[in-house]
Amino acid sequence: MAASRRSDSPSPSDGLVIFGGTGDLALRMLYPSLYYLDLENFLPDDFIIIGAARGAQTRDAFVEMVQEAVRNHAGNSFDDGVWSGFQNRLRYCQVDAGDRQTFESLKRCVGDRRGIAYYLSTSPTLFGPICDNLAQTDMINGTNRVIVEKPLGRNLITSRATNDTIARVFPEHRVFRIDHYLGKETVQNLIALRFANRLFEPIWNSVNIAYVQITVAETVGVENRWSYYNEFGALRDMMQNHLLQLLCLVAMEPPSALDGDALRSEKIKTLRSLRPIEGAAIQTSTARGQYAAGIVGGKSVPGYTEETGGEVSDTETFAALRVDIDNWRWAGTPFYLRTGKRMADRRTDIIIQFRDVPHSAFTADQVMANRLVLTLQPKEEVSLQIMNKMPGISEGPMRLKRLPLSLSLSEAFKAERPRQRIAYERLLLDAIHGKTQHFVHRDETEAAWGFIDGIIEGWSRTSMAVQPYSAGSWGPGGSTALVERNGHHWND
Amino acid sequence: MAASRRSDSPSPSDGLVIFGGTGDLALRMLYPSLYYLDLENFLPDDFIIIGAARGAQTRDAFVEMVQEAVRNHAGNSFDDGVWSGFQNRLRYCQVDAGDRQTFESLKRCVGDRRGIAYYLSTSPTLFGPICDNLAQTDMINGTNRVIVEKPLGRNLITSRATNDTIARVFPEHRVFRIDHYLGKETVQNLIALRFANRLFEPIWNSVNIAYVQITVAETVGVENRWSYYNEFGALRDMMQNHLLQLLCLVAMEPPSALDGDALRSEKIKTLRSLRPIEGAAIQTSTARGQYAAGIVGGKSVPGYTEETGGEVSDTETFAALRVDIDNWRWAGTPFYLRTGKRMADRRTDIIIQFRDVPHSAFTADQVMANRLVLTLQPKEEVSLQIMNKMPGISEGPMRLKRLPLSLSLSEAFKAERPRQRIAYERLLLDAIHGKTQHFVHRDETEAAWGFIDGIIEGWSRTSMAVQPYSAGSWGPGGSTALVERNGHHWND
Repeated sequence: MAASRRSDSPSPSDGLVIFGGTGDLALRMLYPSLYYLDLENFLPDDFIIIGAARGAQTRDAFVEMVQEAVRNHAGNSFDDGVWSGFQNRLRYCQVDAGDRQTFESLKRCVGDRRGIAYYLSTSPTLFGPICDNLAQTDMINGTNRVIVEKPLGRNLITSRATNDTIARVFPEHRVFRIDHYLGKETVQNLIALRFANRLFEPIWNSVNIAYVQITVAETVGVENRWSYYNEFGALRDMMQNHLLQLLCLVAMEPPSALDGDALRSEKIKTLRSLRPIEGAAIQTSTARGQYAAGIVGGKSVPGYTEETGGEVSDTETFAALRVDIDNWRWAGTPFYLRTGKRMADRRTDIIIQFRDVPHSAFTADQVMANRLVLTLQPKEEVSLQIMNKMPGISEGPMRLKRLPLSLSLSEAFKAERPRQRIAYERLLLDAIHGKTQHFVHRDETEAAWGFIDGIIEGWSRTSMAVQPYSAGSWGPGGSTALVERNGHHWND
Repeated sequence: MAASRRSDSPSPSDGLVIFGGTGDLALRMLYPSLYYLDLENFLPDDFIIIGAARGAQTRDAFVEMVQEAVRNHAGNSFDDGVWSGFQNRLRYCQVDAGDRQTFESLKRCVGDRRGIAYYLSTSPTLFGPICDNLAQTDMINGTNRVIVEKPLGRNLITSRATNDTIARVFPEHRVFRIDHYLGKETVQNLIALRFANRLFEPIWNSVNIAYVQITVAETVGVENRWSYYNEFGALRDMMQNHLLQLLCLVAMEPPSALDGDALRSEKIKTLRSLRPIEGAAIQTSTARGQYAAGIVGGKSVPGYTEETGGEVSDTETFAALRVDIDNWRWAGTPFYLRTGKRMADRRTDIIIQFRDVPHSAFTADQVMANRLVLTLQPKEEVSLQIMNKMPGISEGPMRLKRLPLSLSLSEAFKAERPRQRIAYERLLLDAIHGKTQHFVHRDETEAAWGFIDGIIEGWSRTSMAVQPYSAGSWGPGGSTALVERNGHHWND
């Protein structure tokens, strides 16, 4: 079985240009990821990495800045030999997004290298000027790629505008929209679990699955991202992308192949099948909260509005949804999604809750329904909870106990994986090789925004205010009501 | 949900009479099991245990003999306090199966106790005289039970005769035919796995299961049981009972309850659905072997015929069958059964081999079919083999690896189960409480004999001789051919 039908694997890139090349994301994630890729010989021989930013600085100063970033990440495992090769790849180029002249010097720096990937690690307002200047200095040909990341708009209209800006210069199959959740090991394993095992697919439907729960809970607050975050809120910042992407991977139909076209078509179909949350469902199928002061991990923390000195805000730091998928497979199985900051625990997991057995021949209340738990954080793990007979003998009927069949990926593959990877490593490698399957298609972002916009309009129309919740709790009462209304429970 | 519809739980027995009460089975298994039951307070307060045998001996001598047997089993964990209570339960009664007078003294020994269970641990030729004498001395009323064990006949005719003999005195629901495999923890857990989990039943059919393999492999030879064994052979001694019982528990339809009527009805239906092996199938669906000299566990051992000085024999010490079940659920899924002595390994397991995924989107040859393995020996374990993504990154397509989700029952329940139980403990306790679900119904033994007789007739008609196999191997070539003919393989 071919993994791909149409050619999805062009020649690897000869280099990467990072706009915003001295920014936070670049230093925290991108250079360390590239260093690790080099460490494992994944970078092509003459691959260059160009940091592009507005400031004037020497190459030496830039190299030193990158070295410090890599050392911060690698700690004791920093390897001088690898670094010495890696630093030869580094260039710095002073570029001002709005100044075409500066792109000419970037062009000289790139030289005749082909398939250059442009990572736009800048404000989206600069995407237009950058793309235009790349085009007008002839730095775009049939081989280039562009890598972008959230926020890609704040709603469907602005998202479309951003996508249009990019599309003027890059065809869709060379646009790499990062959702770093798609680079996580457990998320990719979900594809293997579903489609490389005979076991699950026949029962992966509303006949056998009662509900699905997806939780992305953070213990951190908004803190120094306040002014950005306050414009977005949990629904736009997390739900529109990460949680809906996880939903897609759980819910999509089996793709005929794993290339970008086949896989993403199934995700698009799923997103377009989401039942709009409107009318009365705004009250019954959504919850929004904002953290108040409380205690997280034994430490007192301030409330959201206190973090910038009491500025009033209706931005949600917690959102929960009941999502229904209007297709044959999922009619009757709600997907519960929730995400929040300052929660009781840092935890990301997907719970597939199976229905009760249709008839129990065992003593009342002994049989608990099966559950498949995919944990992304704090550690990566797959666990299948099944009922077993309690060993031992008794005068009465057989006694049962639910036990997990567990697969700790980090344990099972200890030899293969000495350290926790950065999701960006995998995604950057894919982008270098032009493989789109773990990136988000334009139609996905737009379908997701359409769904999210409907909820935000509903909140606005019904003046649904944020419910306060104590920092260190599992969110506001509305979240509990959301699931219990259907006789279900959050797994806390 | 009631565990039982019709009353399946009469009052517990006031006592147990063991005919053959100084015999090998009684000393090795029954008294130690009863001691352990007492240790855990499972025996009713005034419960008595009467050893009945032909020899004259004092109670003291008998008690000493039992104590030695229990000590042999319990080793360091022998508990003087428990023993002192246990020995008060012990009686000895000199009984000659054919001498009615001796039953009068047994009757005095029993006194007015009710629900006495008679364990016929004797040659089946004595079942008739014992039953008749029990009846004629008025030792049978509406509360007694009889416990019997293999060999219950050597074919359908003799099995029927034995069952008729017992049925003259005991109604079927008070006959407890032991197949000690039904007392094993993993075997009972199979019922829980199948019917207390939503996961398995929807895929438990020929659509999803390619084949089932049941192996009961022993490393021991026949040795001092030669003259008995040579009359029976592997097909009668193991296949007719243990392996077909395991097949039933894998293949049966979900029972509406777990009482003796409901559970055993499903097993009977399954046995009656076995496709007779006849005509050309004798050659293609059966294999028979006899061990020759070889090496087991690093030690040279003699061949079967050398064990009594070269007596020629056509008795099989190994048998393998391909069994087809003619019903909707299993049409198209062969059940491979094999059992032998002097095999490479001591191992009893049931393998549920799922089919390949219908379409693989992964790279060729990476996806291995799922497998559920229930291990009964050497240790009790449930393992579900599933495909996972190999952690890590690569330039090429996703790499997969099959990993077990394992449940070691002894590990998981260490606290609850300090020692390996004897299967007889559970079965004796059930018999004391009159619970029949883990005993074999007359109709089961007869359906199984009918199936086995057909094979033996076929062997005889086609003069199919035993194939020699080296001690320490996995049986004769015919066994390999049996499965490979269908493109399958034994799991060795």
